Parts: sequence; C-alpha cells; structure tokens
Amino acid sequence: MKIAVLPGDGIGPEVTREALKVLDALALPQLTLFEGDVGGIAYKRHGHPLPAETLEMARAADAVLFGAVGDPECDTLPREHRPEQAILGLRSELGLFANLRPAAGFPGLEDLSPLKPELARGIDLLVVRELNGDVYFGDKGERDSAGGREGWDDMSYNEAEVRRIAHSAFRAAQKRRKKLTSVDKANVLETSRIWRETVIELAGEYPDVELDHMYVDNAAMQLVRSPGQFDVIVTGNLFGDILSDQASACVGSIGLLASASLGERTTEFGTFGLYEPIHGSAPDIAGQGKANPVAAILSLAMLLRHSLGRDADANRIERAVAASLSSEVRGADLGGSASTQEIGDAIVRHLQ
Amino acid sequence: MKIAVLPGDGIGPEVTREALKVLDALALPQLTLFEGDVGGIAYKRHGHPLPAETLEMARAADAVLFGAVGDPECDTLPREHRPEQAILGLRSELGLFANLRPAAGFPGLEDLSPLKPELARGIDLLVVRELNGDVYFGDKGERDSAGGREGWDDMSYNEAEVRRIAHSAFRAAQKRRKKLTSVDKANVLETSRIWRETVIELAGEYPDVELDHMYVDNAAMQLVRSPGQFDVIVTGNLFGDILSDQASACVGSIGLLASASLGERTTEFGTFGLYEPIHGSAPDIAGQGKANPVAAILSLAMLLRHSLGRDADANRIERAVAASLSSEVRGADLGGSASTQEIGDAIVRHLQ
Ligand SMILES: CC(C)[C@H](C(=O)O)[C@@H](O)C(=O)O
Ligand SMILES: CC(C)[C@H](C(=O)O)[C@@H](O)C(=O)O
Repeated sequence: MKIAVLPGDGIGPEVTREALKVLDALALPQLTLFEGDVGGIAYKRHGHPLPAETLEMARAADAVLFGAVGDPECDTLPREHRPEQAILGLRSELGLFANLRPAAGFPGLEDLSPLKPELARGIDLLVVRELNGDVYFGDKGERDSAGGREGWDDMSYNEAEVRRIAHSAFRAAQKRRKKLTSVDKANVLETSRIWRETVIELAGEYPDVELDHMYVDNAAMQLVRSPGQFDVIVTGNLFGDILSDQASACVGSIGLLASASLGERTTEFGTFGLYEPIHGSAPDIAGQGKANPVAAILSLAMLLRHSLGRDADANRIERAVAASLSSEVRGADLGGSASTQEIGDAIVRHLQ
Repeated sequence: MKIAVLPGDGIGPEVTREALKVLDALALPQLTLFEGDVGGIAYKRHGHPLPAETLEMARAADAVLFGAVGDPECDTLPREHRPEQAILGLRSELGLFANLRPAAGFPGLEDLSPLKPELARGIDLLVVRELNGDVYFGDKGERDSAGGREGWDDMSYNEAEVRRIAHSAFRAAQKRRKKLTSVDKANVLETSRIWRETVIELAGEYPDVELDHMYVDNAAMQLVRSPGQFDVIVTGNLFGDILSDQASACVGSIGLLASASLGERTTEFGTFGLYEPIHGSAPDIAGQGKANPVAAILSLAMLLRHSLGRDADANRIERAVAASLSSEVRGADLGGSASTQEIGDAIVRHLQ
C-alpha cells in the first residue's frame, strides 16, 4: 500500500503530521509513504505549484493524503502559478471526478453551528460534487466586445460526465438514507437541462433511491431553513463548490470536516483517491500549534475506507476522534486550549 | 405617474391586491394604473408568458409592480413558454440590470431566522445582483461530444456591464454603512477576473467606501457564519441568484422581503424599475387568503422611493408595516392567524 503525502502550505504540514502519527499508531503492514511538495512551497522550491515529480508520485500511489495549499506571498503571481492551481491540476490530471463532502454535526458539539440547535441536530448530509467538468475546465479567456474587455468561460456537461457522477451519488445514497437531491439551474441553463435529463434516465437503475430535483437558489435557501431534509446532494462543480462550503458552515466546525476526491481507477484495495480537510491553509495561525488536526485525521479515515479497503481501521479512527472530542480535548476553534499536537496525542490514546 | 401592475400567477394577484389597497389609501394625485397579464396566466390567455401588450405597457410606465409567476400546469411546456421566461424577458427587454435585495431582520421577529438569535439580530445587508448578463443571457445550446449530448452555456462579463452595476453598488454603499463586498470566483473564472479588475478600477471614485473581495464559496460560508459582517454585496447574475436567496433564508421571513430591479432609464420622478416580492407564486396556498402580502406591500414602498421619488410615502408604508407586525397582526407564515386581507387592512389602518 502506497500513500503519497502532500502536506502543502500554512497549517497543512502540522495537521498532516498528526494524521501521520495516527496512521503510525495503527501499525499497518506493508505501507510505504512518499512525501512531495505542493502549492506555494512547491512554487518556491521548484517554480511550479504542482511539480512533475509530485504529480508522478501521486499517480503511482494508491491514495493521496493532502494537507492544504494557499500562501499570501503567492497572491500576486499569475493564476497558473498560484497554489490553488495545484489542487485543480491534481483533480484533472488524476481524473478525480467525485468529491464527497459529508456534513454532519458531532454529538455534543451542535452548539458550534450558527443554526438553532434543533436545526443543527438534524444535519446529516453528503454533498457529491462533480470535480472534472463544468465552467472550471471549459475553454476560457478574454475577448474584445462593444463593452470593452470581456472575460468569458465555457460551461458544459455531457451525458457521460453526468452519468459517471450520478452513479457515484446514487450508490452513496443506497448506503445511506436512500434519498438523492440533484441540484441544478435547469430553468436557465442548457448545461443543467442535460444534467437533469441524464440523472432522470439513470434513476430507473436505482429504484430503491428516492430522487428529487432542486434549483440551486432554492437549495441554498433550504440548506439554511431545513438542512435536515437532505440526505445526498449531487451537483456540478460550480454549484458544488458553493453548496458544500455552505453545508460545512451550517455544521459550524470547519476544523472537523474532511473530504474525499475519488477517481475512476481502482487500486488493489479500493478506489484511488485524494483526501483533504475542507479547511484551508490558514496562514494567520500557521506554525503556532493552534490548528485543529481533526479534519486531517478524519481525511485519513476516509482514505483508509475508500482507497485501502480498511473499513475497520477507519471506524477505529472515527471512534477515537469522537471519544477525544467528548473527553473535552479541544482546540481554540472549539473554545478549548489543546494544541495541535495534544489533540493528535489524545486521539492516538483513544485508538488503543 | 404611471404604474404597470402585473399580478401574475398563484398568490401574485391576492398579494398585489393588498399592495394596491395601500397605494389607494395614500391617495396620490395624478396616478394611473394599468394592469396586464404575465406568466402562466398570460400563456393560457395569449399563448405567451410575456405578451407584447404586457411588455409595451411596462415600457410605457414609470414603474412596474410585479406579483409572482409560476404555475405547475406549465411545468411541462418547452422552456420558452414557461412562466419564468416572463421575468427573464422583462429584465432583458427593459434593461433592468440592477437587482436590489435588502435582507434585514424585523425588530421583534428575529426568532423567525433559522440562525441563532445573536447572529440573526446582526443581519442588515443589501445584495446588489447584476441582472442582464452572465451565463443567464449568453449563447447556449446542445452539441455533440465524445461523451454524448452536451449542454453548454457561455458565461461572460465585459467592463461596461461590470462598471454599470458596480456604480450602483458603490452608490448604495455610500447611503448605508459604506462597506462593499464584491463576490466572484476569480481564482477559477476569466469572467470573474474582468469583474474584479473592473470593480477595483472604479474604487478610486468612491474613496469613502471600503471595498473588499470574496470568493463565492467563502461568501456562502460567511453568510451563515457571520452575516453581520456584510453591508452591501455586489455580484453577478448567477452568484447573486444563489446568495440573495441564501441571505433571505438567513433572515427567515420570506413573506416579508421585497426587491427592486432598476434600469438605466430615468423617469420624471426617479429611476424606472420593477418591484416584486422575493417569494414565488406558492400555488399550494393560492386563493385561500393565507398568503402574506407584506412583501408585496414593501415592494410598493420601494417603487415609490426609487421610481416615483416619493420617499415620505415609502417611509410611511414601512412604518405602518412595522407597526402592524408589532401589533401582532400576523399571517400563518409567522405563526399567526390573520388572512391576507386582514393583514392588508391592518397596514392601511396603521398608515393613518
Ligand atoms: C481553491 C479553489 C480553486 C477550489 C475550488 O473552487 O474547487 C476550492 O474552493 C475547493 O472547493 O476545493
Ligand atoms: C425564475 C428564475 C429564472 C429567476 C432567476 O434565476 O433569476 C429567479 O430565481 C429569481 O431569482 O428571480
């Protein structure tokens, strides 16, 4: 089993370190780790946010454990050299088309949610975001127009792209409460019309899943008004970017939420994928031991489950995290005073 | 002064009727009303959701008072005949490029918000959404691709389009707390790059306004986590569709929120515009006297202020609405039992 570890920028390295400590404590046989540069640090060392060696290392692995990218010193670089390009490049080069973002409150921590407790308690949803298409990866550029310089981006989805992500979402729904909400803007966009028609065509193959459709503006409203109505949400790259962050904010504990980005390639043990906390590189607190490593540790759990077929280990980690959180070992983001390292140590202790 | 009244579908006619009752009670001199069909009802009567006569009537007026459109019986029609096309057609044909959506809690009604009271109390923001451009009005269609049928939509903004809406937003901020947040996705979209560069260029003309920029995913997060940080938000058509609905949901009382869509044309008394509740046609409760007419009545107040230059009358209506709400005349949506008509009557009484 090979894991490529890409800690990245800001708090990325320090939270990844704690995840590796947890991995180490599991003492898995025949595991090899490779470490590579990505993001701003990679640009500074190698002149590119996603160096060819890093990409090759990721490609050769069964899974990628990703920290975070983003560095204020790189903000003025041309877009192709900025840290975010590393994550976009990994997604497209590695064919990571399915982004899974679970959003659920942690028992006892509902109070972290900005929503009223009775609403917060009901949140238990999964956003399945398409990651390889949409206006993210279409042609784009600048052209002249009667109104001066004009920026343009081509938005599109074809049937094959929609089918692929819809299958992932239907299957995810089958393993949960069997309810799937497809989000689009079919009253305005042709891209969404094809999206919706294709999702509807597939529904026949999943008679046990209840499918409905929602316009994106209404979905943004419903996620605040009654988030408990959702089980699995499937949507395109752009709407998924917005709604998955909104869903995380509704849960409230950004430092606790993880994500998986899965590809089509299967490994010996599961599906190839990249795993990362949903939080960013938080340069303002980097290197101070203030970062919460829980999201990184839960990303590792997702990695073990989806890419290495080690469900039992994933469950063990998740239980240890829950136990550690309820034993009040909490970082500054949760109103506690534990350091990054102390939180990692506590979770390792609860693994036993 | 000429007002085109377009009640539309569902609860549109009944809430518009209450707004007209309030208008009547103001006894404005030299006011002429015209009434036209729009939406599903227009399709059924004239074969088109936006008949030529309705469009001409709107064009000839100083302002349009709009109810709501949307009719389940029209759901299976081809897109160009569906009720929503009426509102898209009015926006583009009348050059209504600036959508103003205030979102603020009503004193004493903070509890309607799904957010915790301390967050809800802080909401007092205005979303300025561009309405004539973006992926809404670009070329679009279906094409063949290696992945089967492909839906596509051209997203774009040029400098002139951005300048126009940014000026509206800067001026709105000057009249408020002087803080403007421009929302885009400039780390991914060329459309957003031109958007951001153009907004920055204009900032020099408004040295009294503090400008910042936020990616749309972060904005969706911040609107839930700490909505009180926002004063004026300016954004494109698609992001504005999503964020303005999200902001309304954060306030909680959809039946109380109004919006204005302003054009470039000035009338003798102000700016030509269309005014509508942010709620939809709610076919499930249509004709039962259950609809809350407050949003329609507050839309009328916006009409008087922006298009007819009658600030004092607008303020009078807004005070009457506030007084009526605090005297506990509330509809079912606010946990009360007052009918549409009773709410209208109470507001008329408070006008005196
Ligand atoms: C950094 C950015 C390009 C990226 C995206 O928009 O996909 C991020 O917001 C995310 O969701 O992972
Ligand atoms: C009905 C629809 C086309 C419209 C839009 O997307 O603009 C609506 O959602 C709105 O916000 O007024």
